[in-house]
Amino acid sequence: MPPLKSWLSIDARSHFSIRNLPFGIISTPHLPQPRPAIAIGSYALDLHAFAGGNGFSKLSIVQPHQSVFSQSTLNDFAALGRPIHRLVREYLQSVLLENGPFPDVLESNDQLQQQVLLPLDQCTMHLPMKIGDYTDFYAGLNHAYNVGVLFRGPQNALQPNYKHLPVGYHGRASSVVVSGTPIRRPTGQILTDPAAEKKEPVLSPCRKLDIELELGCFVCQPSTLGEPVTISQAPEHLFGVVLMNDWSARDIQAWEYVPLGPFNSKNFGTSISPWVVLMDALEPFATDGLKNDTRLLPYLDEKARQSHYAIDLSVALTTPSGSRTTITRTSATQLLFSFPQMLAHHTIGGCPFNVGDLMGSGTISGESRAEKGALLEQTENGKHELELESGEKRTFLEDGDTVTLSGVCGTDEGALVGFGDCIGTIQPALEMKS
Amino acid sequence: MPPLKSWLSIDARSHFSIRNLPFGIISTPHLPQPRPAIAIGSYALDLHAFAGGNGFSKLSIVQPHQSVFSQSTLNDFAALGRPIHRLVREYLQSVLLENGPFPDVLESNDQLQQQVLLPLDQCTMHLPMKIGDYTDFYAGLNHAYNVGVLFRGPQNALQPNYKHLPVGYHGRASSVVVSGTPIRRPTGQILTDPAAEKKEPVLSPCRKLDIELELGCFVCQPSTLGEPVTISQAPEHLFGVVLMNDWSARDIQAWEYVPLGPFNSKNFGTSISPWVVLMDALEPFATDGLKNDTRLLPYLDEKARQSHYAIDLSVALTTPSGSRTTITRTSATQLLFSFPQMLAHHTIGGCPFNVGDLMGSGTISGESRAEKGALLEQTENGKHELELESGEKRTFLEDGDTVTLSGVCGTDEGALVGFGDCIGTIQPALEMKS
Repeated sequence: MPPLKSWLSIDARSHFSIRNLPFGIISTPHLPQPRPAIAIGSYALDLHAFAGGNGFSKLSIVQPHQSVFSQSTLNDFAALGRPIHRLVREYLQSVLLENGPFPDVLESNDQLQQQVLLPLDQCTMHLPMKIGDYTDFYAGLNHAYNVGVLFRGPQNALQPNYKHLPVGYHGRASSVVVSGTPIRRPTGQILTDPAAEKKEPVLSPCRKLDIELELGCFVCQPSTLGEPVTISQAPEHLFGVVLMNDWSARDIQAWEYVPLGPFNSKNFGTSISPWVVLMDALEPFATDGLKNDTRLLPYLDEKARQSHYAIDLSVALTTPSGSRTTITRTSATQLLFSFPQMLAHHTIGGCPFNVGDLMGSGTISGESRAEKGALLEQTENGKHELELESGEKRTFLEDGDTVTLSGVCGTDEGALVGFGDCIGTIQPALEMKS
Repeated sequence: MPPLKSWLSIDARSHFSIRNLPFGIISTPHLPQPRPAIAIGSYALDLHAFAGGNGFSKLSIVQPHQSVFSQSTLNDFAALGRPIHRLVREYLQSVLLENGPFPDVLESNDQLQQQVLLPLDQCTMHLPMKIGDYTDFYAGLNHAYNVGVLFRGPQNALQPNYKHLPVGYHGRASSVVVSGTPIRRPTGQILTDPAAEKKEPVLSPCRKLDIELELGCFVCQPSTLGEPVTISQAPEHLFGVVLMNDWSARDIQAWEYVPLGPFNSKNFGTSISPWVVLMDALEPFATDGLKNDTRLLPYLDEKARQSHYAIDLSVALTTPSGSRTTITRTSATQLLFSFPQMLAHHTIGGCPFNVGDLMGSGTISGESRAEKGALLEQTENGKHELELESGEKRTFLEDGDTVTLSGVCGTDEGALVGFGDCIGTIQPALEMKS
């Protein structure tokens, strides 16, 4: 990848190189109003202040739309569509570029720099989008297989429909939270002895609290009730990607999920990373996902288009002792279906989308133990303990544990396109009033 | 029930007696801006115009909040809370009452009458609430049993969890539409020969398009991530009730639903009736639901509080020939769990609610064939044809069929508390581009 250097000093290992420029919603002690920004190196570039300081003076096409940078979510910006996202991102790149075409906009404008370049560590991050509906898919083939083996054995691990369509379910939009939000251990009905003939649940704090390493993708174009988004239209409907931890209560799930699927086992919290990496920033890393040995119906056929991304993913677990262990390393290429396929399937019957709707990929796992994106798989539902670097052991999460997802594209210094972290710490369950 | 008579002429069989006063969102040819109204007899009382004409002059507590009547949804009104809903409804009753305390507000104010009393048949109805999240439960015991018998036989008809908790799943908020919106027959993956060893789906318009007779209940208080709404708090979180037709594609459902539940088989459209009957209007009809022979965990124990409602429900099917047949008559008492129980269960793990969130009851069926709220049950998944009054036959819905749900509390003339109709007509599937 050819070098692209900014006049701004940026650490060579920063996830937020000039090739990235992800969008998020920040607030600061001096201005508590949430507003759009991009991340660049160790700074947030405040787009509200940038627009107010005439920063878009050289991009006339954006000027009539500058109010999108005064909103408290990215929805209005997203709704402008991918061609505008592309122009804005490329313009911001040119403004930040060493020897770029527009030095007077920011490089030589000290006053505007002081207004718009805010140290990231002084920014509070907010949920980037107002999410209308959230859907979680199950496109991680290895995860689906591993979980199927645990509960149904290797012969019936994958259901007959699995390779024909991206299996998914509707999630709970209200419980999607931004990275850093504490996650309270949920209380719910569980069976203490699932093997007993008489099924008598108790109300208990979850004893099998788990993570799910996923990607999330935001939609930027509305679609109409009754009208599918075709597989060829779908890419233009996608805004950008975040990391997602779909926290899961395995014991609550095991009892509740028949016959209508997961419910309270999922809706107590889903964390996403705060910076939305735009589809255009990911395009240089486009590649194939897992090969599907099933012939797909034409509405899902991407005709060899590469719409997966080579994102290196990791999960770290930090215990209350402070010891941090990377427990998972895998790749976002371990998916059987892509986001365009998910959207084409989701809308084939006419389900409408709104700007800001979110699709989760499903848990991403590789084949070996250290590549598995959920503790359920790593510990075989609690049968094997995971040994951490401190010598501490885990089957599932304990109170005070912090989980950090991370993801990055590329390895070239100064050219990383990363997501930053998606973090959550487990709080003890609420004491139940009797 | 003691008589309560309005100075306004109201048909004795109207669903919208002075005892009801349901809230909805209207627009009219002369004022296309959607705005709140109540239904009274054959009129909508335009609350935006009523507030603007100083109609709330005698209700000082509402005056600081009158902007809620200028919104295009009922969310802001709902968010004022049940004590305010009660005051507003009772005040409007007193304004409409013959020999009431405030004749000068409307009864003797011809000019305001002309501004605010709009013939219902000239009103366009809109979705009453902005719905953040929609959850559909499965609390109709007879329906769950009947469907279970069809797919698993009578021995295993109900899953072990069924009587311990209100089973539910997250639905698709974006596809909830107001009565009258046409419903396009969805296209999706189906198995033409489900018994074949090799499962090879085709893409096809749904061949088993069905209805589900349900109630929907809107939530009017937000709750916080990580904090349950207790069973005793739950009633104050409920705004009001609508009829709901949860259209279902049975063949798409049969193929897609393992292991994560229904998805495209449900998200192509869910119709609700336009008038929200407030909880206080339903209170005189509070009664018991189905008896649960299972001892519930304390968080679901209502302590004998009656929180079901004696709503007579019916489903009529009108074919393109114009022939109308009532195919179902049942009662909303045929539910095993109440809305407060659903909300207490939904939040026990900390799932947060927003004002405007919607909970569906699940399909309501009695025990006999003519009491069943879905064609799946009535025709035993298409095995038996249903004979309509015209001699036409149906297993599932055909293009051009119109389904009308209706519901009403009480039988006393002039005192009915009804929902009006929830109507949808089936449009042919879109032709798929190859």
